[in-house]
Amino acid sequence: MTEQVTWYLEPIQQPDLDAKQQAEQRQLQLTKPTGALGDLETTAIQLANLQGTVHPKIQQPWITIFAGDHGVVEENISAYPQAVTRQMLQNFASGGAAISVIAKHHQAHLQVVDCGTVGETYNYVGVERHCIRAGTANFAQQTAMTEQECLAALELGKNSADLAKAQGSDIFVAGEMGIGNTCSASALACLLLNESAQQLTGLGTGINIEQLQHKIKVIDQAVKLHRPHVANDALKILAAVGGLEIAAMTGAYLRCAQIGLPIVVDGFISSVAALCAMRIQSQSREWMLFGHQSAEYGHQRILKELAAQPILKMNLRLGEGSGAGAALSMIQLACVLHNQMATFAEAAVTGDKVAD
Amino acid sequence: MTEQVTWYLEPIQQPDLDAKQQAEQRQLQLTKPTGALGDLETTAIQLANLQGTVHPKIQQPWITIFAGDHGVVEENISAYPQAVTRQMLQNFASGGAAISVIAKHHQAHLQVVDCGTVGETYNYVGVERHCIRAGTANFAQQTAMTEQECLAALELGKNSADLAKAQGSDIFVAGEMGIGNTCSASALACLLLNESAQQLTGLGTGINIEQLQHKIKVIDQAVKLHRPHVANDALKILAAVGGLEIAAMTGAYLRCAQIGLPIVVDGFISSVAALCAMRIQSQSREWMLFGHQSAEYGHQRILKELAAQPILKMNLRLGEGSGAGAALSMIQLACVLHNQMATFAEAAVTGDKVAD
Repeated sequence: MTEQVTWYLEPIQQPDLDAKQQAEQRQLQLTKPTGALGDLETTAIQLANLQGTVHPKIQQPWITIFAGDHGVVEENISAYPQAVTRQMLQNFASGGAAISVIAKHHQAHLQVVDCGTVGETYNYVGVERHCIRAGTANFAQQTAMTEQECLAALELGKNSADLAKAQGSDIFVAGEMGIGNTCSASALACLLLNESAQQLTGLGTGINIEQLQHKIKVIDQAVKLHRPHVANDALKILAAVGGLEIAAMTGAYLRCAQIGLPIVVDGFISSVAALCAMRIQSQSREWMLFGHQSAEYGHQRILKELAAQPILKMNLRLGEGSGAGAALSMIQLACVLHNQMATFAEAAVTGDKVAD
Repeated sequence: MTEQVTWYLEPIQQPDLDAKQQAEQRQLQLTKPTGALGDLETTAIQLANLQGTVHPKIQQPWITIFAGDHGVVEENISAYPQAVTRQMLQNFASGGAAISVIAKHHQAHLQVVDCGTVGETYNYVGVERHCIRAGTANFAQQTAMTEQECLAALELGKNSADLAKAQGSDIFVAGEMGIGNTCSASALACLLLNESAQQLTGLGTGINIEQLQHKIKVIDQAVKLHRPHVANDALKILAAVGGLEIAAMTGAYLRCAQIGLPIVVDGFISSVAALCAMRIQSQSREWMLFGHQSAEYGHQRILKELAAQPILKMNLRLGEGSGAGAALSMIQLACVLHNQMATFAEAAVTGDKVAD
């Protein structure tokens, strides 16, 4: 790799320890028993730490959907035809998809980035088209993309993070779309964790049990094919079995951590991208909140590796950033409670417990 | 009991099965894999069933906090002094408490009802003062309240539900405040479920392990004292070991179910009130959504008895209706997604899976 493309190794920003401690102190003074607001308290404190203020807020959320197609669909591992990737791109931009509705609900900026999908040239209003390649190669047979293509995808993510920051966003959500991408994410997880596909592969958008067995077999064979060449190098693993949209999310997460923009990670695929980012730079983990625990089998294992406590557990398994987008409601509420509740002193409420 | 006070035995309203089926059909047509929005889908469908429309909504939430004091604090079972009940009443009304901030965040109507607390006569702006009695009697020694007092408390709940309906509210949250009320709720649960205090008693607002052992002992002895006189009669159980605010919540839940106003149940204490309502009229259960799974030990057991799937699992244990109030965000989002997402036909997205 050449000198000019190593932006992703630039230092990660240090969160603000003072702001964190001030936020912890404030939580102790609010009119409630210590810890009684549970994850709403820890969420507010984490965001104070990341935003560098005792009064964190979510006023301008940013959501980018990265899309890409996957050559591995040739192996018949998905429930939906590949054309759905493109169709959903239009649906994101025209406002009909779940994440579009969630973005509107939160008055969030929604950016839709096609990193490389299969099909004719097009011009959909509201979709930024890039074509690093027209979908990845079938990783069951060969490397999904070259290292150059992988770096180009990382850079699309970087660009989105930089743009979000430049426009004054206070939190960043990445979502993904790509028929076949749970298969890619499972293969990535197998290589990153050195575990078998059985432990890390789920039903995706809804294949049946027989199809799941086939998907697991495809992934195990692909892992066997690529393992000798990738070792523990997250970038090589991404290029070998990843997706363009997954690499873009990885790049976005790394850049957010460099420029100090808090991240809300979505479900299984996003969490695998987060794990890639953490393997490239471990400190990037500090900038991540985790929106939800997905119903996709394998997500819990990834969350464990990330030492993540997801905010929502609502059996979502849609992707698109929808779980992270839904979690914005709770993050926002955590901030509002943290900032607006009265202290014991302000409310003249007895904060001391009865002497034990 | 006399004829005129049996309002709580009047019939429960039937939810609208047509609206439910239409909502289920709509969910199948939205641009996402079937079931991929998990609990957000089931929540929208349940609310469609209760509101009698394929397009459910939360635009005017109503929150009532019922407060009451507990004679059982004499047994030294709480971490905070009894004066905190009154202090928090003022804090609710003046906007500094968690539930006040949550109510404002959702533009919900917040009603604060003192059912009977200990202390001088007062006049707090925004607090509706009733004094059925100045706190319950110590149920470790005697019956907490008379049946007449219990019915008067139920009626306060009825009045709140009727007022919410009259003012056009589309969902009802009841919260509670009362130092000592987890002790009362645990005793109620023991009598309702015929189980020991060990299984149903937690740390409340934050007692230590030694104090917990004492609390369990107090409850077990009280249960032994009252069981012969109450049998399985939920009203007698409420009068024996309940609280005025818990009885009021029970009344509110029953009335909501009679007048067709959907309920969001809060945490441990509210769920015990919901269980009382269900024991008085089992069909009232259909009108309940469950906001969250509390960190209070015993809540999971109560939720199991209610066959409830709570929306949030965020380790809250504050009471005041705060968990149900927080869940309003997700219920609202469930409605918005259900109503605003495009169908496969509208978005020209391929909804059929690849042939298996």
